[in-house]
Amino acid sequence: MLGKIALEEAWTLPEASSSFDPLSLAPKGVIGGDLGANLLDIHSERLSQMNENGVELMVLSLVSAGIQGLSDRSAAENLARTANDALEAAVLQNPTRFAAMSALSMHDAAQAAAELRRCMTQKRGFVGCLLNDFQSAGEDGNTMLFYDAPEYDVFWAAAEELDAPVYIHPRSATPLIQAQMWKGREQLAYSALGYANRVNMHALGIITSGVLDRFPGVKLVLGHMGEHIPYDLYRIDHKLNRARFPNMRMRKDKLVRDYFGSQVFITTSGHFSTPALLCALTEIGADAIMFSIDYPFESIPNGSVWFDEHVRDSLNSRDLVKIGRNNALKVYPKLKETPHELKEMTPSECGVEGLKTDEGEVEFGLYNKHWSKRLIKQ
Amino acid sequence: MLGKIALEEAWTLPEASSSFDPLSLAPKGVIGGDLGANLLDIHSERLSQMNENGVELMVLSLVSAGIQGLSDRSAAENLARTANDALEAAVLQNPTRFAAMSALSMHDAAQAAAELRRCMTQKRGFVGCLLNDFQSAGEDGNTMLFYDAPEYDVFWAAAEELDAPVYIHPRSATPLIQAQMWKGREQLAYSALGYANRVNMHALGIITSGVLDRFPGVKLVLGHMGEHIPYDLYRIDHKLNRARFPNMRMRKDKLVRDYFGSQVFITTSGHFSTPALLCALTEIGADAIMFSIDYPFESIPNGSVWFDEHVRDSLNSRDLVKIGRNNALKVYPKLKETPHELKEMTPSECGVEGLKTDEGEVEFGLYNKHWSKRLIKQ
Amino acid sequence: MLGKIALEEAWTLPEASSSFDPLSLAPKGVIGGDLGANLLDIHSERLSQMNENGVELMVLSLVSAGIQGLSDRSAAENLARTANDALEAAVLQNPTRFAAMSALSMHDAAQAAAELRRCMTQKRGFVGCLLNDFQSAGEDGNTMLFYDAPEYDVFWAAAEELDAPVYIHPRSATPLIQAQMWKGREQLAYSALGYANRVNMHALGIITSGVLDRFPGVKLVLGHMGEHIPYDLYRIDHKLNRARFPNMRMRKDKLVRDYFGSQVFITTSGHFSTPALLCALTEIGADAIMFSIDYPFESIPNGSVWFDEHVRDSLNSRDLVKIGRNNALKVYPKLKETPHELKEMTPSECGVEGLKTDEGEVEFGLYNKHWSKRLIKQ
Amino acid sequence: MLGKIALEEAWTLPEASSSFDPLSLAPKGVIGGDLGANLLDIHSERLSQMNENGVELMVLSLVSAGIQGLSDRSAAENLARTANDALEAAVLQNPTRFAAMSALSMHDAAQAAAELRRCMTQKRGFVGCLLNDFQSAGEDGNTMLFYDAPEYDVFWAAAEELDAPVYIHPRSATPLIQAQMWKGREQLAYSALGYANRVNMHALGIITSGVLDRFPGVKLVLGHMGEHIPYDLYRIDHKLNRARFPNMRMRKDKLVRDYFGSQVFITTSGHFSTPALLCALTEIGADAIMFSIDYPFESIPNGSVWFDEHVRDSLNSRDLVKIGRNNALKVYPKLKETPHELKEMTPSECGVEGLKTDEGEVEFGLYNKHWSKRLIKQ
Repeated sequence: MLGKIALEEAWTLPEASSSFDPLSLAPKGVIGGDLGANLLDIHSERLSQMNENGVELMVLSLVSAGIQGLSDRSAAENLARTANDALEAAVLQNPTRFAAMSALSMHDAAQAAAELRRCMTQKRGFVGCLLNDFQSAGEDGNTMLFYDAPEYDVFWAAAEELDAPVYIHPRSATPLIQAQMWKGREQLAYSALGYANRVNMHALGIITSGVLDRFPGVKLVLGHMGEHIPYDLYRIDHKLNRARFPNMRMRKDKLVRDYFGSQVFITTSGHFSTPALLCALTEIGADAIMFSIDYPFESIPNGSVWFDEHVRDSLNSRDLVKIGRNNALKVYPKLKETPHELKEMTPSECGVEGLKTDEGEVEFGLYNKHWSKRLIKQ
Repeated sequence: MLGKIALEEAWTLPEASSSFDPLSLAPKGVIGGDLGANLLDIHSERLSQMNENGVELMVLSLVSAGIQGLSDRSAAENLARTANDALEAAVLQNPTRFAAMSALSMHDAAQAAAELRRCMTQKRGFVGCLLNDFQSAGEDGNTMLFYDAPEYDVFWAAAEELDAPVYIHPRSATPLIQAQMWKGREQLAYSALGYANRVNMHALGIITSGVLDRFPGVKLVLGHMGEHIPYDLYRIDHKLNRARFPNMRMRKDKLVRDYFGSQVFITTSGHFSTPALLCALTEIGADAIMFSIDYPFESIPNGSVWFDEHVRDSLNSRDLVKIGRNNALKVYPKLKETPHELKEMTPSECGVEGLKTDEGEVEFGLYNKHWSKRLIKQ
Repeated sequence: MLGKIALEEAWTLPEASSSFDPLSLAPKGVIGGDLGANLLDIHSERLSQMNENGVELMVLSLVSAGIQGLSDRSAAENLARTANDALEAAVLQNPTRFAAMSALSMHDAAQAAAELRRCMTQKRGFVGCLLNDFQSAGEDGNTMLFYDAPEYDVFWAAAEELDAPVYIHPRSATPLIQAQMWKGREQLAYSALGYANRVNMHALGIITSGVLDRFPGVKLVLGHMGEHIPYDLYRIDHKLNRARFPNMRMRKDKLVRDYFGSQVFITTSGHFSTPALLCALTEIGADAIMFSIDYPFESIPNGSVWFDEHVRDSLNSRDLVKIGRNNALKVYPKLKETPHELKEMTPSECGVEGLKTDEGEVEFGLYNKHWSKRLIKQ
Repeated sequence: MLGKIALEEAWTLPEASSSFDPLSLAPKGVIGGDLGANLLDIHSERLSQMNENGVELMVLSLVSAGIQGLSDRSAAENLARTANDALEAAVLQNPTRFAAMSALSMHDAAQAAAELRRCMTQKRGFVGCLLNDFQSAGEDGNTMLFYDAPEYDVFWAAAEELDAPVYIHPRSATPLIQAQMWKGREQLAYSALGYANRVNMHALGIITSGVLDRFPGVKLVLGHMGEHIPYDLYRIDHKLNRARFPNMRMRKDKLVRDYFGSQVFITTSGHFSTPALLCALTEIGADAIMFSIDYPFESIPNGSVWFDEHVRDSLNSRDLVKIGRNNALKVYPKLKETPHELKEMTPSECGVEGLKTDEGEVEFGLYNKHWSKRLIKQ
C-alpha cells in the first residue's frame, strides 16, 4: 500500500548513548545487522527502505527508555531539550517524509508541559510526544513515577491545549524488579509479554484515574496492537465493578472500552499478527487502529509485507487505508499542516484497488504471480 | 440500541392483493400470526413494536414481488402510482417514524424514471426506490427483464440525478422455472438460498455491465447480508478474468469489491447471523453495512434482540451505531431532511456506552441480569 | 505445508472432448497457458508442480460437466465406463500421489450404483465419486435430473454401503436458461456466483429431502468453500420453518447446519479467501473443511501459497493440518488403504511448527525473509 | 448447553480464612451477595445453580492465593494437607457432580510432589492440581518462588507421571510491589489486567525454561482466556529470537504456540468475551479451549448464558461441545474414571442441535422467543 504512515519509529543521537546501549538488546548482527547504526541513521538506509516499501512518512521518537530512564532530573531535562533540538533539525531536512515526537522529562510535570509547549509552538515538525512508561527516579533508579498521579494534571492540560497526542511506549523494568523476578531468565526480562504487561498497567492507570475525563481533548496512543488491552477489554471493564472501587475517578457512566477511537488509539508496531488485528477490529474498530513498524527493532519490509499482502488479504481496502494512513491524519492533525502537508488518500490513490491494467494484470487474487512456478517461499 | 433505522420493511395496500397473496407464503398463524394483517398495518402494532425495540424509523416499501410481479405493463404502472400515493399518505401521518421507497414498473425505463422523479420531487417522504429483482413480462409471465440492459440507462440516470438509492430486493422465480426445478420441492421454491441466488446474479449483472461506472452517483442496496456476495467476493473477482471477458463493460481498473461502501451497500434484513456479519465486516467494512429487519416476514423483537444484545457483544459501539443508524443517513441523505429530520447519533445517545448508573448498574458485561437466577432461557 | 491432499482436481481424456471443450472456457494463453493440455496431463507438469508445492496427493475426477453433460443415456453410460477405466490406469501408475473419483451417468440410478460398485470394489484407486450437479436429459438437453428424487435412493444406498463420499460439483446451465437469463452477458454465464448458485440449490435439495437421514453413512462434499452455504446457514435454517413446509422429508429434529462435519464437508477449491475460510471455521468448524485447488482451472502455486503462507498466518497449525490433510483421510478412508497408504501427519511432520533451525532460522514471524530488502512484491 | 464441565471453580474451608479474606475483595452485597458464604457452600446453592444452568460437573480448588499465600513453609504444607482431605470428603459426597484439584505448598518441590502423589493415588476424586502463581516466601512475604527454577523438576516429573494437569491460577502481588506500584490505585491492584500480567509471565517462564520439553506428559492450564497469551502469541514467538537468547532452554525447533492444544490449554473463566474467544479459536484452535466460570467470583448463570446463547450464536455445535465439555475429558482423563465416570457427549445429547420439536419449536434462530413481544431486556 502506498502512502503508509508509521508512528512508533525510533531514533537516537550520540548524546543519548548513556540511556540506551543497543548492545544490551542485541549483539551486532542479530537485529537488523547493526541496531546502533540503524538508530542513528535517518536519511540514508532508513529512507531508502521507506521508499521501497510504500512508507510515505515516519514519525520519529527517541529510543526507549530515553529520558524516562534517567533518574537524575537535570540530566533528564537537559537531554530532552538536546534531543528535541536535534530531532527538529533532522526532520526539517525532509519534512514531507519525517515528523517528530517530543521527548520529555517527567520528573516535574510543569517542566514537561513547558518543554512540550516549546516543541509544539516554537519548533517545527513536532506532532505530539512519546513517553516511555514510568519515569525512573531516586538515587538507585528504583523509584517509579506514574502519570496518573494528580500532580501530572498540569502536563495533561498542556497536551490537551496543544492537541499533542501522547504515545505511551514500553520500557524495561527497574533494577530491583529485574533482579527480583527475572534473574537468570533473560528471555523473560526482554520478552514482548513483559514490556506490554508493564505499560498496559500504566495506561490503565491513566484512564481509570479520570485523566481522559478531566481533559477530553487528550489522546493516548498505545503500540504493539494495544499492549493486550483489546483482547482483555471485556474482563477489564467487567471487573471494574463500581461498588468495589467507589473511589475510582473515571466517569461512572463510561467504560474503558468507550475511550477507544475517540481518546485512545493503538498501533500495529511490532505485532504483525492478523488474528490479533482482527480481534482489535471487532473490539475497538478500524477507526481506532493505526499502522506502525517499530523500526529498527523491526524490519521495514517485514512489517510492510505483512500489511500490504497479508492484512490486505483479510481486510477491505477502505479500512486498510484508514489503518495504513488516514486515521493517523485524524489523530495527529499537525501532519496535515506545514511543513508536512499530508493529505487523506483514497484506496485507489494508495494502489489497493482494481487491477493494475497498465502492468497487464487481468486477474484478481494472485498470491503467487506466476501460474505454474512457485515464487514465494517463506 | 436506541435510534435504529430499518430499511427493508414491507407494507401493502388492499389494491395490491392480486400481486401478493400472503397465504402463498404462510398459513395464518405461522409467520407473525397474520402476515396479511401485519402487512396492512403501519401505525398500530408495527409502531408499538418499534417503540418497544428501539427502532426509530422504518423505511417502507411495497411487498415483493409487488410491481415486478405484474407482467402487464399498464396494470404495473397504475398499481405503482396507486401504491406510491397511498404510501406517501401513510408516511406523512408520522414522518419522523416512517419514510418511503418508491415502487416502480420496470417495463419501460423512461416511465420508471418519470415515476421515480414524481416521488422524489413532487411527493414527500420518499428517500429512494426498491425493485423486486427482474420485471415479469410477456403473456405467460415467463419473460424476465433485467436492468443491466442498455435501455435502462435512462432509469439509472434519473436515480443518480435524484440521489435515490436503488434497493434490489429478491422475488419468486417465473412459473416456468418453478415448474422445471422445484416441482414437489416446496422447501426449495421458497428457500432463503433460492431468493438470494436469483437476486445476486441480477445485482452482479448491473455491476459488471458498468452501470455504476456510467452513473457514479448511483447507489445499490442489497438485503439479507448482501445475498451471499460478501462471502464470495474473492472468487467473483478472481474469476472475472479480463482476458476471458474482454467485452465486460465494467471499468477494467476496478473490482466488484471496490464498489462496496461507496456505491453498493448491504443490510442485515432477515439474516441475523453474527458469523456472516463478521465476515462482511472484514470483506466490505462497517461503512458498507446497515441494519434492517424484513418485517413482517421477520419479527421486530427477534431482529432487534440479535442486534442489541448479540451483535453488541461482538462489536465495538462505534461500528454498532454506524450499522444500526448512522450509515443509513449517509446512504439515504433525504432522511436528514424535512419531513424526517433525522440526525446522526453518538454511541452514548444510542444507549450503548457506559453503565446505566441511573438504574443502579455497577458492573459491565452481564448477559443475565440476576446473579444467581437464570433469567434467559432460549 | 507438506503433505497436502487436494480433492477437486480435474482431468480429462481425449474421448471426452465432446462433453468439454476447453476453448469454451478460455482461449489458449488465458488460464494456465493451455487448459486443454493441462487437463490431459497427469504425470508430468502437474506432478512436478505438486512436488514444488507440497501437494502429496491429488484425487482426480473427470472435468465438468463430464457425464452430466450428456443427455443421451447410453452415450453417458459408455463414457463413464471408459473414463473410469482410463482413470484407474492413470492413477495406478503412481498411486501414492494420485487417487480417483468415479464418473457416473445419473440417467438411471441403478446403473449409477452398479458403476460406482464396479469402481469401488473391482477396480483399484477409487475413493469416492463426483457428480457435476444435475444430469442433462431430454432431446434438447433442457431436462434436468436432480438426485433428491426418490428414485435415486438406490444410488444413495450404494454410496453408503461402499463408503464412497459423493462430491457435488457445479456445472454450466441448460441451453434454455443460458439463453433466457444471460444472453449477451458472458461474464454472468460463466461467473463463479452462477456456478455456485445452481449447485447449492441441488445440494440443499438432497439434504432437505432426507437423503442424509435415510442413509446416515452418506457423505456429501461441496467445493468452493461450500458454495455460499456456510455464510447463509443461519438464514437457510431459519426460513425452513417446519409449519410452512410440513412435507419436507428431512428429520424434524435436525437442522441443515447439523449435517456439516459428520455428513457434509466443504473444500477450499478455487475460493482462496481467508475471510470466507474464517467464516466457515466458525459456522461449520475446522473438522468440516478440506483443502483443494481446482486444478487446472486454478494455479497450483497460487492455491498453495495462499494456504501455506496466508492461511497459516491466520490459523493455528493443528487446524491447518486438519484442513490441509488429515480431514481428507477421515472423510475418504480409502486413502489410508492400499494402494494409497496415506497416514495422518502431525504439524511438525508437515513442516508448520517450530523454527527451521537446520536452515539457520532464529526468528519466527517473518513475512519477508530479508531484513532490509523487500523480496515479495505482489 | 447440557453437560458443561467447569474447571476453575473456587471453594474454601474455615481453616483457610487466614490466607483469604473475602472482605479484602468485596464488601458483602457486592459480588454474589456473600462471597464468603458462596465459597464455603458446595452442595446447596452452588449445586442448585449448576442444575439450572446445565453445568454437570465442577472441578473445585482452594481459593487463591491459598497455599501460595503462606510464606511459612510448615503452615503451608499443613494447610495443603488439611484442605485436600476436606475437599476429598466434600467431593465424594457427590462425585458425579464434583471433582478436586490438589492444593500444594511449593516451598519444597519434593514435598509438593509427594502431596500431589498422595492426592492422585491414595485419595479419590482428584483429577489434577492448581497452583496460584508464585509461592510467597521469606519473613516479609516478599520473596517469590517461581516454578521454572531447576529445583522444581522433581515436581514436574511427578505431575507427568501422575497425569495430573497443572492449572496455573493468578494471585495478588507481594506487599512490596503493591506498595510500590499501586498505592492509592485500588482499581489497579485488583484489576483483571494486573492478575493476568503476573501469571502470564510465570507461565511463559515455565514454557521457555523447557519444562514442557523435559516432561512431555505435563499439561498446563491457564484461565481467563489464556491470560492474554493467545492475543500476543505472534509477538511472543517473534521476539524470542534464538540468537538473542542462546541460553533459553526451550527446544529450538519449537515455538511457544506449538505447545497449545497438546501441553498448554486455556479456559474461559471470567472472560466472557466472544471476540477474545474467536481470536483464541484461530490462534490456538478449538481443541485447546475449555469452558470455565470462576465461581463464586463470577455468576454461574452469567457465564452459562454467555456460553449457551452468545457463543452458540457464533460457533458451530461441534466446537461448542468440545469447548463446553469434551476437551476437559481429554485433558483431565481422570474425569472419565471412577468415581466421576463422565463420558463424551454429542451435540445432540448436549441439546445444541436441531429443533426442540417436542416443545413445539418449528423455527431456528430465535433470539427472542415471542414473535411480537420483547422478552429479553438486558
